[in-house]
Amino acid sequence: MRQVAILGIGQTKIDEHWDLSLREIGGNAALAALHDAGVEKVDALFVGNMLSPLISGQNQLGTFFSDWIGLWHKEAVKVEAACGSGGAALRAGLMAVASGDIDSALVVGVEKMSDKAGHDVTAALATAADADYEAEQGISFVGINALVMRRYMHEYGWKHADFAPFSINAHANAMHNPFARLHQKINVEQFEKSAMVATPINLLDASPIGDGAAAVVIVPAEKVASLNGKPRVTIAGAGSSTDSIAVHSRKDPLFLSAAYQSAKRAYEMANVEPKDIDVFELHDAFSIMSALSLEACGFAERGQGVRLGLDNELSPNGRVPICTRGGLKARGHPVGATGMYQIVEVIQQLRGECGATQVDGAKIGMAQNIGGSGATILTHILKAE
Amino acid sequence: MRQVAILGIGQTKIDEHWDLSLREIGGNAALAALHDAGVEKVDALFVGNMLSPLISGQNQLGTFFSDWIGLWHKEAVKVEAACGSGGAALRAGLMAVASGDIDSALVVGVEKMSDKAGHDVTAALATAADADYEAEQGISFVGINALVMRRYMHEYGWKHADFAPFSINAHANAMHNPFARLHQKINVEQFEKSAMVATPINLLDASPIGDGAAAVVIVPAEKVASLNGKPRVTIAGAGSSTDSIAVHSRKDPLFLSAAYQSAKRAYEMANVEPKDIDVFELHDAFSIMSALSLEACGFAERGQGVRLGLDNELSPNGRVPICTRGGLKARGHPVGATGMYQIVEVIQQLRGECGATQVDGAKIGMAQNIGGSGATILTHILKAE
Repeated sequence: MRQVAILGIGQTKIDEHWDLSLREIGGNAALAALHDAGVEKVDALFVGNMLSPLISGQNQLGTFFSDWIGLWHKEAVKVEAACGSGGAALRAGLMAVASGDIDSALVVGVEKMSDKAGHDVTAALATAADADYEAEQGISFVGINALVMRRYMHEYGWKHADFAPFSINAHANAMHNPFARLHQKINVEQFEKSAMVATPINLLDASPIGDGAAAVVIVPAEKVASLNGKPRVTIAGAGSSTDSIAVHSRKDPLFLSAAYQSAKRAYEMANVEPKDIDVFELHDAFSIMSALSLEACGFAERGQGVRLGLDNELSPNGRVPICTRGGLKARGHPVGATGMYQIVEVIQQLRGECGATQVDGAKIGMAQNIGGSGATILTHILKAE
Repeated sequence: MRQVAILGIGQTKIDEHWDLSLREIGGNAALAALHDAGVEKVDALFVGNMLSPLISGQNQLGTFFSDWIGLWHKEAVKVEAACGSGGAALRAGLMAVASGDIDSALVVGVEKMSDKAGHDVTAALATAADADYEAEQGISFVGINALVMRRYMHEYGWKHADFAPFSINAHANAMHNPFARLHQKINVEQFEKSAMVATPINLLDASPIGDGAAAVVIVPAEKVASLNGKPRVTIAGAGSSTDSIAVHSRKDPLFLSAAYQSAKRAYEMANVEPKDIDVFELHDAFSIMSALSLEACGFAERGQGVRLGLDNELSPNGRVPICTRGGLKARGHPVGATGMYQIVEVIQQLRGECGATQVDGAKIGMAQNIGGSGATILTHILKAE
């Protein structure tokens, strides 16, 4: 497959956008990416979205957005893998450009969640789980993650406060990201006293939903000589893998095998190892997922992901910088858009555009996007040249 | 891009499958395709589906099915383009195999529609239209198509009975397809007397929904030396294009520009012309769509698609055989699965497996799958070697 580079990026602030429609949110990010890329048209549009049929009564989002932003008579399609939809859309676009069939693509991750009441959104999010064997039992998505976290604490002897560094780091970094949903520092006391959602997951273990969109323009790498002084960023590695959709079907519910598999594939393709990764935007939908991702991707031993936080290794100047723009926890988690926010943020790091949370000399970044409770996992490794 | 061949096909009968779940329907077609291909595993699974979030409360169908059929730790994703989802899934799989990143893929189109009441399904189908500017006005999907048909009749002077040959041909062909939803011949009198749905579209202008799934296994063509005496079928041409999502935004609502564009692309890639197409499985969701597809793809002049039926050119031994297995009209239209039924049926023709509706010496077949009212259109050309 031919090498693919990122030509431009765009994103919108994550918020409750009562004044903006699904159309406008996705369109704004898409147009921002085209503008950043310095192009008006691309050959195709790939849209990652999870909830628009359920929340906006709108399907066929590929064409919905190609129509809205004036990409008339172009190929367009929607890709869905629950909260992994954004990463899955990038992968679909990557395959199409890498195949040689098209020469440019716009990839947009978008979600508009505020148009329904909270209980409707909770029900909609449960469609990421197994409808017949999980959701049918009345368990919510956070409930499933709570069972996993409780088991992890039991198995490895961690207490709830040991997870605090994940959220504290995310909130601290989001302070410097104008696109982030939450701009408030937190400390261990606040983390411990936060309202319970599903024991042991409290409000500060959990990422906030929101409305938002993020986008990139991709082209064959050979067509990008230079980017007005910015480093050229290529997609050096890409992997996608799956696990059972229901957590209870797994032999070991504390190991994200799809994270391991997809990261392994991405490492091999990019010819790098975990120690080469300068920045890692992981899928911290719940603090437990940060620990499990770090372990599955080779940054910590089994059961020891939590220690990286306690040892202060996760901040932008630590050994394994994660959630440098706030992560899902504080940048926010507009579910189908999240994977594309991660990609945009890694590129911002590789371009050196992250100000107070810039990782010095970042050259290689990784983004990992998860659909369901570890069911569909996409890992991309980006390199600055 | 490297050439891709079809290694195996599978399908289920389209029906109201009260005794089968979404899982079983899609799984049965997928396993049938793997069995036909003579392989147990593939590198990736691409699923086309439109309505499972709304009807089954299930998202993330890629992983849902990879889990169910035992494709553990493999890549899996869902692709959605309304009723064009099946064709869009094939295209996504094609790009991935053509890129060289993976060496085999299973593509499944699946829909389970009987689990909701009729008015819920009508509302769910309306998500293919523009939620803000069409569905919001209370118009149903068939209502939009009725406006197009009425305009066509007004513009070109056709009367309703002139459309009868489309449905009569489809029903006659479905008699010989064991997987078809409807097995009943119809005549002009029945066509004219059928119950009105949305003037001028009556029940026999409209395709029946249903539960069903169809699947193929694709691999790089160079890996297929022979198929136990069956001709090797390659994907020789592929095109995807879009139009506005709302019909009223088009300068000319009677021209399927996305059909024209996607067919043009497919013809060029396959290096063929309309006259070279031996069999054409088109998207006859409503009889008017048959006429418009034939015109946009170069088989008839503007406004003259209807004449092909009146001149008896559309039967298996006519000049332009369409709906040879019953089409959407009589084989049935399980929306997100339909595009894959079309592909499977073209392959059956190229393999010479169609019995009474076999097109003699069929070597080149085309399938065209439409999402929305002409909004997303995918055209694939298959060749037997």
